[in-house]
Amino acid sequence: MMTVTSNEKYQKCIDICLECAQVCEFCATSCLNEPDPKMMAGCIKLDRDCADICVLAAQFMARDSEFSMEICSLCAQVCKACGDECAKFPPEHCKNCADICNRCAVECENMAK
Amino acid sequence: MMTVTSNEKYQKCIDICLECAQVCEFCATSCLNEPDPKMMAGCIKLDRDCADICVLAAQFMARDSEFSMEICSLCAQVCKACGDECAKFPPEHCKNCADICNRCAVECENMAK
Amino acid sequence: MMTVTSNEKYQKCIDICLECAQVCEFCATSCLNEPDPKMMAGCIKLDRDCADICVLAAQFMARDSEFSMEICSLCAQVCKACGDECAKFPPEHCKNCADICNRCAVECENMAK
Amino acid sequence: MMTVTSNEKYQKCIDICLECAQVCEFCATSCLNEPDPKMMAGCIKLDRDCADICVLAAQFMARDSEFSMEICSLCAQVCKACGDECAKFPPEHCKNCADICNRCAVECENMAK
Repeated sequence: MMTVTSNEKYQKCIDICLECAQVCEFCATSCLNEPDPKMMAGCIKLDRDCADICVLAAQFMARDSEFSMEICSLCAQVCKACGDECAKFPPEHCKNCADICNRCAVECENMAK
Repeated sequence: MMTVTSNEKYQKCIDICLECAQVCEFCATSCLNEPDPKMMAGCIKLDRDCADICVLAAQFMARDSEFSMEICSLCAQVCKACGDECAKFPPEHCKNCADICNRCAVECENMAK
Repeated sequence: MMTVTSNEKYQKCIDICLECAQVCEFCATSCLNEPDPKMMAGCIKLDRDCADICVLAAQFMARDSEFSMEICSLCAQVCKACGDECAKFPPEHCKNCADICNRCAVECENMAK
Repeated sequence: MMTVTSNEKYQKCIDICLECAQVCEFCATSCLNEPDPKMMAGCIKLDRDCADICVLAAQFMARDSEFSMEICSLCAQVCKACGDECAKFPPEHCKNCADICNRCAVECENMAK
């Protein structure tokens, strides 16, 4: 996203949070479409949490909330847990999700400092 | 956003919905920071609705929901109303918001067909 | 919920939307905890959509949005689809979810008129 | 809400989070309808944050998320800030909002322990 109309100081972190949210939503659906989603139940659960907190973190930053740092701190924790879980599974959607979750966790941690 | 890990057929519409959501959040906050937010009360209210429905439309598309077309149809309506309202006000954040809302409405209408 | 501090004309519909959202969230998790979630993949997907749209419908009504009727109309459609899908499965969480989805659909349809 | 179909161990905290979210949405709209919303700009901003985090906390609990305690801890902080801000203003919607925010903060803090 190339917008400079929103809050610029947060833009990099907003962008990765919104990308992470999409990839988590897609990963959850893709896990459910796999032959055996039972083994990925933990991944699907964390994908839901991670997508939701990433979206809310982005919204808080976009609106310049006074709790932007706090929600980024929580978002980083959820991203790390989701990334660790996704990394256990071979499908490409899980690997991609693990990668973006880990990068989002780093960005959110930096924002939370 | 350059991701191809999420749902590609929806990507253009997802991107503009997420950009519109951010710009609406920022416009609402910026209106509240103006000397006289009272005259922009309708703009602030629609910004909230528009940001929320844009985010949910993006999430539905990213997860390949069977209701993606229906939520894009509603999203287009809200974007149009928000764009019309924002266009009435001189600040740049309102002008930017009107522009992105109108473009998002077009994209969502195309998606809903 | 006994509140009369929020928007009273919408209260009955808000209440059932928020109850439906909870029950859908719980049903999705419970489906993932079943021995074979694969057969319930459609139910889990619709639970996510239904929970999210119910929450947003409740928020729109609570804030007296001018799009309350439109979102209730879409919410009714998603509730019906989710209720039909959940009704196919024997676990109690699915039966409960089908019941509340069907009741929420009726309430949202009435609101949308 | 009388449901026992959702997650019972969290039910009291879910109920107050969802009530708080509604009251915050209503307070924000009501502030915008006041003759001078400028003086309540901080209240409107915190109402938005508080409504959103309360809803997400309720969803995390309803789905039995492993991050339920963490989000309740953050929710308590936002509720406290919102309650403190709302308490400064005379309208009944602000007083009601301050009251429910404070009660929600207590419940969320207990949940987070």
